[in-house]
Amino acid sequence: MADPLRLGIAGLGTVGAGVVGIVQRHTELLTARTGRTVTITAVSARSRGKDRGVDLSAYAWEDDPVALAMRDDVDVFVELMGGDSGPALDATKAALAAGKDVVTANKAMLAHHGQDLAEMAEAAGRTIRFEAAVAGGIPVIKALTESLAANEITRVMGVMNGTCNYILTRMENAGLPYDEVFAEADALGYLEADPTLDVGGIDAGHKLALLAAIAFGTKPDFDGMRIEGIERISIDDIRRAADMGYRIKLLGVAQRTKDGIEQRMQPCLVPAISPLGQLEGGTNMVVIEGDAVEQIVLRGPGAGMGPTASAVMGDVCDLARGIRIPTFGQPAALLEDATPSRSAQPASYYLRLMLDDRPGTLAQVATILGQNGLSIHRMRQYDHKEQVAPVLIVTHAATPDALDAAMRALETTDVVLVPPVALRIEAE
Amino acid sequence: MADPLRLGIAGLGTVGAGVVGIVQRHTELLTARTGRTVTITAVSARSRGKDRGVDLSAYAWEDDPVALAMRDDVDVFVELMGGDSGPALDATKAALAAGKDVVTANKAMLAHHGQDLAEMAEAAGRTIRFEAAVAGGIPVIKALTESLAANEITRVMGVMNGTCNYILTRMENAGLPYDEVFAEADALGYLEADPTLDVGGIDAGHKLALLAAIAFGTKPDFDGMRIEGIERISIDDIRRAADMGYRIKLLGVAQRTKDGIEQRMQPCLVPAISPLGQLEGGTNMVVIEGDAVEQIVLRGPGAGMGPTASAVMGDVCDLARGIRIPTFGQPAALLEDATPSRSAQPASYYLRLMLDDRPGTLAQVATILGQNGLSIHRMRQYDHKEQVAPVLIVTHAATPDALDAAMRALETTDVVLVPPVALRIEAE
Repeated sequence: MADPLRLGIAGLGTVGAGVVGIVQRHTELLTARTGRTVTITAVSARSRGKDRGVDLSAYAWEDDPVALAMRDDVDVFVELMGGDSGPALDATKAALAAGKDVVTANKAMLAHHGQDLAEMAEAAGRTIRFEAAVAGGIPVIKALTESLAANEITRVMGVMNGTCNYILTRMENAGLPYDEVFAEADALGYLEADPTLDVGGIDAGHKLALLAAIAFGTKPDFDGMRIEGIERISIDDIRRAADMGYRIKLLGVAQRTKDGIEQRMQPCLVPAISPLGQLEGGTNMVVIEGDAVEQIVLRGPGAGMGPTASAVMGDVCDLARGIRIPTFGQPAALLEDATPSRSAQPASYYLRLMLDDRPGTLAQVATILGQNGLSIHRMRQYDHKEQVAPVLIVTHAATPDALDAAMRALETTDVVLVPPVALRIEAE
Repeated sequence: MADPLRLGIAGLGTVGAGVVGIVQRHTELLTARTGRTVTITAVSARSRGKDRGVDLSAYAWEDDPVALAMRDDVDVFVELMGGDSGPALDATKAALAAGKDVVTANKAMLAHHGQDLAEMAEAAGRTIRFEAAVAGGIPVIKALTESLAANEITRVMGVMNGTCNYILTRMENAGLPYDEVFAEADALGYLEADPTLDVGGIDAGHKLALLAAIAFGTKPDFDGMRIEGIERISIDDIRRAADMGYRIKLLGVAQRTKDGIEQRMQPCLVPAISPLGQLEGGTNMVVIEGDAVEQIVLRGPGAGMGPTASAVMGDVCDLARGIRIPTFGQPAALLEDATPSRSAQPASYYLRLMLDDRPGTLAQVATILGQNGLSIHRMRQYDHKEQVAPVLIVTHAATPDALDAAMRALETTDVVLVPPVALRIEAE
């Protein structure tokens, strides 16, 4: 039998503890399936004393993840610290420089530094695996990189942040306002230390940037993505969307257009009866379309100890089996710069405007929309008691640019009293 | 760059032509992603003259697939002929003996001869890949074998025969009887040459046997599977199931129980609003449950030129990249004999009985059910004009053995005029 594969694990939060648990629980199964023993030799985390529910006594301890990454008795550096730079990035670079393979769940680091790291890995003859970075336990990276390798990928889309989906479905099911559900999610420990990463769409954006890089053979381009969060979504928006047969989802879409790569992560209205519309709670779903495969849909838990550790260990098993594929599916030198597309497909939009309730207001809004090429399909003013009149408009198909221009123009008037909400309607 | 990977393709039906199309269309993309040129050197099929919509003039022609499999200029033998033995098996063995890797879409051959072939492949240091054999373009083999390699798999289930699902959904949507839709499917070319393979559940059973082997580390055990087809499902069954909130699906389930491996492929009632219940037409869906990953669901086209060729070429790309994994995910010598489980989980059953309309008939049926441990949850006798009274019964949870015994006892009476239909209700 081949030599054992020795892991050094940096970061012992939920996922790290889950990985330790699998290695300890499934010793025989891992050996049968990979032909090698998978062992842990050393671990590292911020606090040594903390009880993590797993026995770490057999492993060497390193306070410094960089030191862990460079140990002679480590073959694979498992990076589960998080953070787009700092210790995670330092240790990952140190591991590659020292000739280790890397398995990571760190989407932020890869979205920002993936190209550099991929180049470093290839120069060192090593590989970076990151199935756990996108959509938890769902094998979307492997599906895209390997299973669909013979396809020209035309579109990748999906719901990839379980926390946002939890908040949106909880608001709808319990009829609670955003702030209240946000506080609930915080109390349950669902939010990142910086909650903007979740509710601002940034975490999901990092994931989409990685999928787009693999799908289109481009360098990860997080900065070229259009990102909007869910912070402005009100319970009223959710109810009105439901009245029209839609649900609101934080939806990511990446596709190749005639002038570049379109990447957007934004709350959208999707048909309530569609697979995406039916997603509840922390479940993720990714849809991949290719010229040969047509469309496949992958669904599963987007986070959590077991599912994320399953993905980390799937990568570890690949390394144990000797599988080595370039980080983004082809050599880093072949990845092209992604040109952000300006030709995004037109769509209908849902607009919620809070207007000053006086004569001429609606006319002024309608004029501005018309001047910017937005045609009104449906409009309804809701009952109200105060001076603020809620108006809901569904437009005919318009380009994102036209929508943006209209929104900017509306914000400069004195009749729109609250920043307007504009949500794309994805017919799917 | 490494040497080209040279394919020899035996079988030029829809899928074979699709594979040729991808190799010709995506030369650059395949090279970028695998680091090698993927070429075709020789092909073989029953009829040389037939127009298949692709240019084969650059490839050598072999009338005999065995000769093709042994050619010196072939690295990978791509077997797309079908059939559980005969030329497909002969040629596959010849290829392995000659030191070729094999990519096949042939579930029948692997379900019956998978263990022998896996042993041959390993003895020769070669590998057999078969993503296209199960669920068309959906990467279920790779997900199970690689992505979830660190999981103890607890259950695999799904809808894996697009033709049956087409027939059942078409019957429901158009309100047509089985025979009429069967004839339609035949005219559309959806049926295998021997249609029993499809509607008898055998084709789907072959697929489930392969998934179970990977999931549980057992030799493929097609003979240990309980298989029922959809031939007895009537439009009335479909309507009554719908009235109760269910749809009828040909559902495969494989799970480890306390005394062995349970494998069954049978029409079941599943909740109409569940993901399985909503599957339309030729779409397949596979659900995989593991101790770490919890549950993932994969959905996509279960057949067709593009999707199946995509799966074949995904395997080819793996080989081009040097990925070699034992056929069923671990060395053939480690695969255990599968003991068919007798401890299948109890379930409610839907029974449709056509009874002789005379006094005492229902009492006799109720007695037989009671004697066999089947308790009645709901019973309804439908309006009728003839002497045959249709009776629908929904039982409380019962074991498959109890159900079988009751069905056998009912068939021996003279009051049940037509073979009864008994369908398991899967709560999911």
